[in-house]
Amino acid sequence: MKYLKAPFFEIGPKAYMYGKEMLELASAVDEASRKYDVRVILTPQVSDIRLITANTRDILVFAQHMDPIPVGRGLGSVLPEAITDAGAVGVMLNHAECQMTVANLRKAIARARGLDIYSIVCADSLEDARAIAMLAPDIIVAEPSELIGTGQTSGEEYVRATTEAIRGVNPEIRILQAAGIKDANDVYNVIRAGAEATGSTSGIMKAADPCKMAAEMLAAVRQAWDETHATK
Amino acid sequence: MKYLKAPFFEIGPKAYMYGKEMLELASAVDEASRKYDVRVILTPQVSDIRLITANTRDILVFAQHMDPIPVGRGLGSVLPEAITDAGAVGVMLNHAECQMTVANLRKAIARARGLDIYSIVCADSLEDARAIAMLAPDIIVAEPSELIGTGQTSGEEYVRATTEAIRGVNPEIRILQAAGIKDANDVYNVIRAGAEATGSTSGIMKAADPCKMAAEMLAAVRQAWDETHATK
Amino acid sequence: MKYLKAPFFEIGPKAYMYGKEMLELASAVDEASRKYDVRVILTPQVSDIRLITANTRDILVFAQHMDPIPVGRGLGSVLPEAITDAGAVGVMLNHAECQMTVANLRKAIARARGLDIYSIVCADSLEDARAIAMLAPDIIVAEPSELIGTGQTSGEEYVRATTEAIRGVNPEIRILQAAGIKDANDVYNVIRAGAEATGSTSGIMKAADPCKMAAEMLAAVRQAWDETHATK
Amino acid sequence: MKYLKAPFFEIGPKAYMYGKEMLELASAVDEASRKYDVRVILTPQVSDIRLITANTRDILVFAQHMDPIPVGRGLGSVLPEAITDAGAVGVMLNHAECQMTVANLRKAIARARGLDIYSIVCADSLEDARAIAMLAPDIIVAEPSELIGTGQTSGEEYVRATTEAIRGVNPEIRILQAAGIKDANDVYNVIRAGAEATGSTSGIMKAADPCKMAAEMLAAVRQAWDETHATK
Repeated sequence: MKYLKAPFFEIGPKAYMYGKEMLELASAVDEASRKYDVRVILTPQVSDIRLITANTRDILVFAQHMDPIPVGRGLGSVLPEAITDAGAVGVMLNHAECQMTVANLRKAIARARGLDIYSIVCADSLEDARAIAMLAPDIIVAEPSELIGTGQTSGEEYVRATTEAIRGVNPEIRILQAAGIKDANDVYNVIRAGAEATGSTSGIMKAADPCKMAAEMLAAVRQAWDETHATK
Repeated sequence: MKYLKAPFFEIGPKAYMYGKEMLELASAVDEASRKYDVRVILTPQVSDIRLITANTRDILVFAQHMDPIPVGRGLGSVLPEAITDAGAVGVMLNHAECQMTVANLRKAIARARGLDIYSIVCADSLEDARAIAMLAPDIIVAEPSELIGTGQTSGEEYVRATTEAIRGVNPEIRILQAAGIKDANDVYNVIRAGAEATGSTSGIMKAADPCKMAAEMLAAVRQAWDETHATK
Repeated sequence: MKYLKAPFFEIGPKAYMYGKEMLELASAVDEASRKYDVRVILTPQVSDIRLITANTRDILVFAQHMDPIPVGRGLGSVLPEAITDAGAVGVMLNHAECQMTVANLRKAIARARGLDIYSIVCADSLEDARAIAMLAPDIIVAEPSELIGTGQTSGEEYVRATTEAIRGVNPEIRILQAAGIKDANDVYNVIRAGAEATGSTSGIMKAADPCKMAAEMLAAVRQAWDETHATK
Repeated sequence: MKYLKAPFFEIGPKAYMYGKEMLELASAVDEASRKYDVRVILTPQVSDIRLITANTRDILVFAQHMDPIPVGRGLGSVLPEAITDAGAVGVMLNHAECQMTVANLRKAIARARGLDIYSIVCADSLEDARAIAMLAPDIIVAEPSELIGTGQTSGEEYVRATTEAIRGVNPEIRILQAAGIKDANDVYNVIRAGAEATGSTSGIMKAADPCKMAAEMLAAVRQAWDETHATK
């Protein structure tokens, strides 16, 4: 976990982007990651993992999902060993669009640990975050669907509450605060509110110029982080 | 469909093999495919599609599965455009370990058609095969679980029955007869029984030398095919 | 199938209604079914099957779903024998909110046949309807989601097309035309367009007086049917 | 929770038993429950809930599962309000044969709380048990699949470890120790090892005389409980 120092940022292409376009964004982000000294997690389509890892240097390529199965049967599944072989250094688990059962989530986190890759697990509520923290993933994404659209998401109060809840269970878990981040201003605000990490999907994927938007967001992470921590 | 002429053979690595070992087998099969003039479909882990297509020439690389979604949301899914971008020329659908609903199967076959890639759909029974034939995939895998272990699988009678059933619905669909093919002898028998295609997973994956076993199976396809069709 | 003569009507309470309120609607519908001589299929929550069958006489109580499992393991599943024991005389399968794999759908239709209960299977498109017809259920619900909201749904042309498609595969299958039926007028129009059956969920569930709305719909079925068939 | 005092016992018929036979067993168990002063949870098929609750007095009838949906859409689902209307006073959640996602499990526990019914949640491992304890269900079934067949299951050491783990998170949660209980002797041993509750499925369902076997198990609960607690 040494390498994933704060602040960091997650870009989730879902099924919006692939191939050449994905590689272009990854390359631009790789450069911006160095420029602003912000660690970036990128979760491309599984078929693009090898392409991205072979052509970038500093971004952290994670799989969007994996199945906690051993080498063997399981047609149609994502084998943990196969994605690490392709260069993935982490895996996202339990996203709202790809939810997992309690037992499978626990097994997948253990598989990630066994392969020495990061696990980043999405939590749909404060209660879910506490339960997931008991399973000791490396990172929890606090993206409570109940708060989306309420305007409270990036508030100091909410960042404080989730941070306390997760830290109360396991202080080693890194916390990413993500909910409806649309532009660099949202990024700035959530980091200023105390977050050590945030991320975006549609804010970047639907931007007129995704490379430019991503770079602006990373710049905002850096600026907000420095302003927040300089005086401390 | 011109390229996929009979006889052909499918190798399904499932989650048994990946990375370097997968590429070695793919390369050996690529060569044997040319030597015996037998078309070969290979379905590697999605993360290996690009690796295999970039390093082989004649084998047909198919995805193990894809989700019939449009470009956009869908974290954790396999986007059809992403696998074709990686070089896949086809997709397996509805395998017993990755079953699909009727509506999703129909949509996935239509997505494959729209992207001009092959669809190979598994049918768990004669009745399923007839229903699936109505959805007009390119290839149907007739692998009735009810017959596995009964010894009837590769018999002439069964090959004839399934062929008639599927052809009765749609004569353009290619048919792959697969059930418990363990070695070259099984391959020989099923092609001699009248099949135009067969395939194997564990017979190759669990062999002491998978490359050698695969080459022997392809040789058996060629021999059986020539003996069957020479005199006609 | 003798008893399920045309015209007939399906009421789908989904999870909108249960217990006392469900029984009141069932009783009202039971009476209206006799008054207008229209067969009615009602699909209550599984926990209400026994309550409804014990307190009505002529309506046909179907389960909303069942799992094609044998007596034995399967916690949380709906055992076919358990719902027939409770009085169900049929089962709905493959509704858009409860979709089934090809193999499970085929097995469930076979289980229904083995227990001598009706199977009514939902088809999401014309193509799905043709494929499902190969599995020979008793009734197919032609409710193509692609046409919902297009205004073509209850048109003569569409009713004719689906009827021909299904009959072309298996002329014994009964066909229920359902898509966005909101009131008695919609019911009248779809039967006048040539349908032998239709149905409604939200049109009745969200009505100010569900019992009254259901009775009006059944009256509309009778009137449209008589006008359509009297002159023939 | 006052009524569910220790010791208690759970009988899980899964899909083994239904209708008349289920009612006979329920009646016998109802009587044995009073005779031995042991609380009994019974989880019949959903279609039998109303039948059992109407004809028994002291057993606690739970649903095998429910979906955390509101009244409304959701064909094929088990509506919480519908099972409580039928008389269920609790619900089993997350059984190995009916696993739930983290978010759905949290919502279902909350729905049970809102309807003032018990939630009994299955945990597949010690780690799962700790995570689930954070969601504060009323009862946790500690049935670690990793220990099944190892002979440690009903040992004092294991009972102590799971009890400590769950109590460490939330001391209000009741704990049921279940794993391969086959007869009255197994029941006796696990209660003597310190458990406050246990249960059985196949031990009763596959017994030559299920009513007799269930009664013997309840007698063993009482005897073991009294011997364990008399001297304290």
